[in-house]
Amino acid sequence: MRSLERRPGVTARVRVHEYADGAVREHEDRLAAEEPLEVRLAWPGHPAERVAVTMRTPGHDFELAAGMLFAEGVLEAGRLRSVSYCTDTSLTEEQAYNVVTVDLDRPPHRVPSARYAGPGAASSACGVCGTESIDDVLALCEVRRPGDHPVVSRDVLLALPSRLRSAQRVFDSTGGLHAAGLFDGLGAALVVREDIGRHNAVDKVVGARLLEGLPTSVPVLCVSGRIGFELVQKAAAAGIGVLAAIGAPSSLAVRLASEAGVCLVGFLNDERFVVYTAPDRIGVG
Amino acid sequence: MRSLERRPGVTARVRVHEYADGAVREHEDRLAAEEPLEVRLAWPGHPAERVAVTMRTPGHDFELAAGMLFAEGVLEAGRLRSVSYCTDTSLTEEQAYNVVTVDLDRPPHRVPSARYAGPGAASSACGVCGTESIDDVLALCEVRRPGDHPVVSRDVLLALPSRLRSAQRVFDSTGGLHAAGLFDGLGAALVVREDIGRHNAVDKVVGARLLEGLPTSVPVLCVSGRIGFELVQKAAAAGIGVLAAIGAPSSLAVRLASEAGVCLVGFLNDERFVVYTAPDRIGVG
Repeated sequence: MRSLERRPGVTARVRVHEYADGAVREHEDRLAAEEPLEVRLAWPGHPAERVAVTMRTPGHDFELAAGMLFAEGVLEAGRLRSVSYCTDTSLTEEQAYNVVTVDLDRPPHRVPSARYAGPGAASSACGVCGTESIDDVLALCEVRRPGDHPVVSRDVLLALPSRLRSAQRVFDSTGGLHAAGLFDGLGAALVVREDIGRHNAVDKVVGARLLEGLPTSVPVLCVSGRIGFELVQKAAAAGIGVLAAIGAPSSLAVRLASEAGVCLVGFLNDERFVVYTAPDRIGVG
Repeated sequence: MRSLERRPGVTARVRVHEYADGAVREHEDRLAAEEPLEVRLAWPGHPAERVAVTMRTPGHDFELAAGMLFAEGVLEAGRLRSVSYCTDTSLTEEQAYNVVTVDLDRPPHRVPSARYAGPGAASSACGVCGTESIDDVLALCEVRRPGDHPVVSRDVLLALPSRLRSAQRVFDSTGGLHAAGLFDGLGAALVVREDIGRHNAVDKVVGARLLEGLPTSVPVLCVSGRIGFELVQKAAAAGIGVLAAIGAPSSLAVRLASEAGVCLVGFLNDERFVVYTAPDRIGVG
């Protein structure tokens, strides 16, 4: 199905000067690793070609590439032939691990916008311009209306932040990573991933399901940080029922969630949360 | 110099259900506004053409467009003829305010990568792939080595978070916006801007200096949130001396700051901070 993925190098070490309590202290610190990832797309008769570049935290790169192309409507579930690191001999070993090729078993029914839609169309906001066109975005981004999801109880939601945090291996050592987790209707973690970019973390958890051949339409996606338009688009594309975030949503995030039928929850901590759309998806029991 | 800019619509209102203290309460809430902005570029003999789309909080759109193109090496200081909203009659009024045209007085010596460099090249990471190529990025992104900046004292840095926050008009009502501020060597705020995207907030403060015809190479840029590669690239392109953030930097941010001679400060609050690069730029006095 896929080539062996390298062991993630999610942190880097550096010497720092820390100013605190009126003194300066020199010591070693850990940083969240950030490196560019180039995603190439191929299908039978079509050589691998670059379709995206993103800055990401190395690790789970195959999931990231698959999840990203899935959210953009390029990769359909079940159409993946392989995901592999680059074998281009002109690249150094370090560079080769920053290039991933996604191989489809047939031509995509939607090609990446960067190639065919002209300058500037590579935006992950689907090239939308003018907020009149939310309907177009919904169509363009292959948004799937969430199916029959269970009502998620208040107590399950309130337990998610601590579960997300406890599944984060790296955060405590760097303070620099976002997390995303998929959860079932009883709050059990299905998969949790971290990345310096919150969009990447979401692509990784959705991509993890795709690579395992499992459905992406799970009851809950919980993310650290804030919710913009693009995170809602990714959740809707995956058919997820509830998108819950530790931070605040934007106006366009709420608007798209409302149109797409995603239940949007913000400001989630272990004592309270705010429901912006589809409030009947949350149960008080 | 530029057309009249519309009054910012930085928040939106929405009805929400809040779960807290074992009860559900329905009330009105405020959201950070998010809308797409399309940036078009024109010069004499060259009609306006789309070069970028970004999701942003409306307001200071001309600054955002100018700052973004400056960071990418497309707009040079002093080469700006006008910035204006779109007059395309096929757009609705709402859409027209989401399209900004930057008019140069002569052809740019560097054209936006999206147009000429092939698929996927629109990445704001300058298309970098493979961390061997930091030197290329420094050249490509028109990074200017910071000039003779004053040493910034510890006490000035410690005072910045509260000054940034007090200049933030919107944050307290939505919890959803990032802030960026330019400060002089004594910690006085030169310009502070907010946006749902931290990159946009930085483009806005740099763009504000450009539109006023003032130098961008100020002593300090302070940002909420974390520091990735791209923020360092923007600070370096502007010739800024110290980039200070409330959050953590990434590995590539530190590497680029070291190469570009930018003093990088992270985890800044009113009691402590960590210096990652160019520690001799910070004074204990």
